[in-house]
Amino acid sequence: MQISAAALARMIDATIDGDPEVIITGPARIEEAGSGQITFLANPAYEHHLYETKATAVLVSRDFQPRKPISPTLLRVDNVYETVSGLLQVYQQDEAAQTVRQVSQHAAVDATARLGERVRIGKFTVVSEKAFIGAGTVVLDQVFIGPNVRIGNNCTIYPGARILRDCVVGNNCILHANVVIGADGFGFLPDGEGNNQKVPQVGNVVLEDEVEIGSNTTVDRATMGSTVIRRGVKLDNLIQIGHNVEIGRNTVIAAQAGVAGSTKIGANCRIGGQVGFAGHLTIADGTNIQAQSGIARHIKEPGQALAGSPAFGYRDWIKSSIVFSRLPELYKRVAQLEKILEK
Amino acid sequence: MQISAAALARMIDATIDGDPEVIITGPARIEEAGSGQITFLANPAYEHHLYETKATAVLVSRDFQPRKPISPTLLRVDNVYETVSGLLQVYQQDEAAQTVRQVSQHAAVDATARLGERVRIGKFTVVSEKAFIGAGTVVLDQVFIGPNVRIGNNCTIYPGARILRDCVVGNNCILHANVVIGADGFGFLPDGEGNNQKVPQVGNVVLEDEVEIGSNTTVDRATMGSTVIRRGVKLDNLIQIGHNVEIGRNTVIAAQAGVAGSTKIGANCRIGGQVGFAGHLTIADGTNIQAQSGIARHIKEPGQALAGSPAFGYRDWIKSSIVFSRLPELYKRVAQLEKILEK
Amino acid sequence: MQISAAALARMIDATIDGDPEVIITGPARIEEAGSGQITFLANPAYEHHLYETKATAVLVSRDFQPRKPISPTLLRVDNVYETVSGLLQVYQQDEAAQTVRQVSQHAAVDATARLGERVRIGKFTVVSEKAFIGAGTVVLDQVFIGPNVRIGNNCTIYPGARILRDCVVGNNCILHANVVIGADGFGFLPDGEGNNQKVPQVGNVVLEDEVEIGSNTTVDRATMGSTVIRRGVKLDNLIQIGHNVEIGRNTVIAAQAGVAGSTKIGANCRIGGQVGFAGHLTIADGTNIQAQSGIARHIKEPGQALAGSPAFGYRDWIKSSIVFSRLPELYKRVAQLEKILEK
Repeated sequence: MQISAAALARMIDATIDGDPEVIITGPARIEEAGSGQITFLANPAYEHHLYETKATAVLVSRDFQPRKPISPTLLRVDNVYETVSGLLQVYQQDEAAQTVRQVSQHAAVDATARLGERVRIGKFTVVSEKAFIGAGTVVLDQVFIGPNVRIGNNCTIYPGARILRDCVVGNNCILHANVVIGADGFGFLPDGEGNNQKVPQVGNVVLEDEVEIGSNTTVDRATMGSTVIRRGVKLDNLIQIGHNVEIGRNTVIAAQAGVAGSTKIGANCRIGGQVGFAGHLTIADGTNIQAQSGIARHIKEPGQALAGSPAFGYRDWIKSSIVFSRLPELYKRVAQLEKILEK
Repeated sequence: MQISAAALARMIDATIDGDPEVIITGPARIEEAGSGQITFLANPAYEHHLYETKATAVLVSRDFQPRKPISPTLLRVDNVYETVSGLLQVYQQDEAAQTVRQVSQHAAVDATARLGERVRIGKFTVVSEKAFIGAGTVVLDQVFIGPNVRIGNNCTIYPGARILRDCVVGNNCILHANVVIGADGFGFLPDGEGNNQKVPQVGNVVLEDEVEIGSNTTVDRATMGSTVIRRGVKLDNLIQIGHNVEIGRNTVIAAQAGVAGSTKIGANCRIGGQVGFAGHLTIADGTNIQAQSGIARHIKEPGQALAGSPAFGYRDWIKSSIVFSRLPELYKRVAQLEKILEK
Repeated sequence: MQISAAALARMIDATIDGDPEVIITGPARIEEAGSGQITFLANPAYEHHLYETKATAVLVSRDFQPRKPISPTLLRVDNVYETVSGLLQVYQQDEAAQTVRQVSQHAAVDATARLGERVRIGKFTVVSEKAFIGAGTVVLDQVFIGPNVRIGNNCTIYPGARILRDCVVGNNCILHANVVIGADGFGFLPDGEGNNQKVPQVGNVVLEDEVEIGSNTTVDRATMGSTVIRRGVKLDNLIQIGHNVEIGRNTVIAAQAGVAGSTKIGANCRIGGQVGFAGHLTIADGTNIQAQSGIARHIKEPGQALAGSPAFGYRDWIKSSIVFSRLPELYKRVAQLEKILEK
């Protein structure tokens, strides 16, 4: 890319402070940007970088007032993050297009599978019996798509993802490398002699539209019925979703969280990393849960912020945690009081 | 499947309340079941669904007394869960049989590997030098079986599982997608200059019979000797088992738990999700550990219930956790007492 | 291997107590060693095994004095661990050499990829456009190497590892099975209507030399710039490294730990299993963090030992944890004091 600051400003509806004729060749982070690059300042905590950056241009908000002289050209926009996101999309090479241009001759596509228009399939990928893949979907290399799996339009499935029999993926979904969708749920019944008898898992997993699932995350199939990930849900890496779980619309879950079987998480929740949910719970819409918390009860009131294991109100947990670090002192003080009163 | 309630009742030794001639076409969960489906009521907490379900038939226990009129045909049995499990097994399609019918021409089986009778090998699966696979075992697509690996009879190995050199898998084991058996243990020695020198890992992993391992779980090979998973152990997804660990017979471990090197866990333990064990510990038989607990000491007395990080008795931990949530109040009360006594 | 104790002693500069003519055939752990095997005693806690072992020879330190009569031949060395490590390296078969001897005819190597001297590529492995692999590197079976990936010399890449577009791997790195390097970072912007808009991730991952990464660990690519793992870092299994993270030289991280986006961990840190770091933090060099801790603030002073969630000083945390287990008692004692004072 080679574009002048003036031309770029017209594209993104920016006003310019500084030289409009400088040429921009690509994006970079403000700490790392060099000559020719454009970067951005959205978080005031990083403002000091602005006075040292070697970037040629910087995106800032309309009302930003530098406190010192600066050398790069400033492009002022209404919403810096949104503009950056849009610019990056221009830059991001279509990896799918780059690496998979057709149905590879090294793929194994069953004769009974059906592929929509413009579907591309990578090398050593398996598409099993009666699977269906919608128009425009790109399946990269070494992916497994099981029997009767149904995938929507315009999805991207990265190398090593496994989508097992009967599972359903909506439109515009992104499944990252080595994701496992539809492995058996973890269900056993004691046989009375100390052994654990496997409960067959005959349900499936349903991912609705616009779902993104991070690498090495596992979503187990339902014992019966479906494990359901609703529209717009984003799951980070290494997350465990148990059988018959339901994750509500637009909920976002950070890495290494785990949800035990049959728990239903509401819409628009934000779940921190390494959080754990017990099974058979219902969690209200808009719940925010701090990283590493443990949820062992129903959450009925929407919009709460929770923390701790077992979790309670976030602000109260902060206070309790502060006292926790002073417990030895508190213990001594109680002993001291007892001594005084014994006298 | 098309079966009348009467015919099914004979199969499962049930008595019938309602129309014995209704036709059942498949299983479903009670909240989701529709016309033609059979569901079950085992947990009294779900009884209200019974009065709303559109299922054609419902399995209940012999002594169940509905509190309202109901429309589905009831099939009464001694143990609802056991009957459901049996029925599901009838339904569960043999995925292996469905997807892998022979040794695929797209597999790479080394000339020195030996396959038992009826072994089936999927597409893009590698069976390395001198590996042995026992009769009736099904290896699905894209699996890696390393040199000198020995797998027993009637196992199912799902896509993307990796079983590295010299490891041993017993009979009737199930390894789910993207499991890694026998990666190097995590062992380093400081070289005196700040660098960490790798300790070669020359042992292996031994899985005994009837072991099931969840997707993306990792079991590291021993430094020397064997990491051992005893008969009947069930490991959920995303679990880490370190080098030289031993897991005792019939122990069940939930998702995302981790066991550091050389720890020995006893038989018939139940370990919750996200539990962590330090290394070089011995854990007694029948220990129950609450989710997210941390175990940093030997557990010598069998059959204890533990919780917390560091863990102690479960009931005491519950009580301590309740006080934890009241710590700010307790802190104030102590300050108040001090004030009174200072007067 | 067939070697006499005397010959081995000359190799490792050991002195001998006992029969120098015994023949050693291989290594084993002291609890498991049998006739013909050599084992070692480094940790005094295991000394009792020495008096029961059936091993033919045992490595001990120069100054070790047995308290009872023993049957195996003793080989005395300066540093038992170092000698064991050296011996194991002699024993460890070169798995790579054993399983992958050339560029497999079942691999898919793009015509524009470049391979250094003696590079070996396994079956069903993909090497994409313009990738570069340095001399002596061994890529095992079923690996994905994306477009423009650059891998140094003498690396070992195990089955199922995925290295996505534009990522860089240094020399002498080891990537274990099913590792994912360079999946998209987890970045979204709310669109004002409750949906989460994906922020394109256009950076990469850079692994410097001597990095080892455990199985099923994920290292996300930077939004812009690079996620950087410095020279000599060792990551265990199932770890999550977020976008734009930096891990300092020779830092060691145990299994299932997670580092959120943009956090910078210093050099020579030791991070326990299941530890979590919030995003955008800076952690000083030489920080030691206890397993399961949660780090939510900058750590500025180097060399601290920390524990807890939220974490503080390790020794203080131990004390607070002891009082935590006595909280119900403390609570009652405070109530008792109040009662006394109310009188």
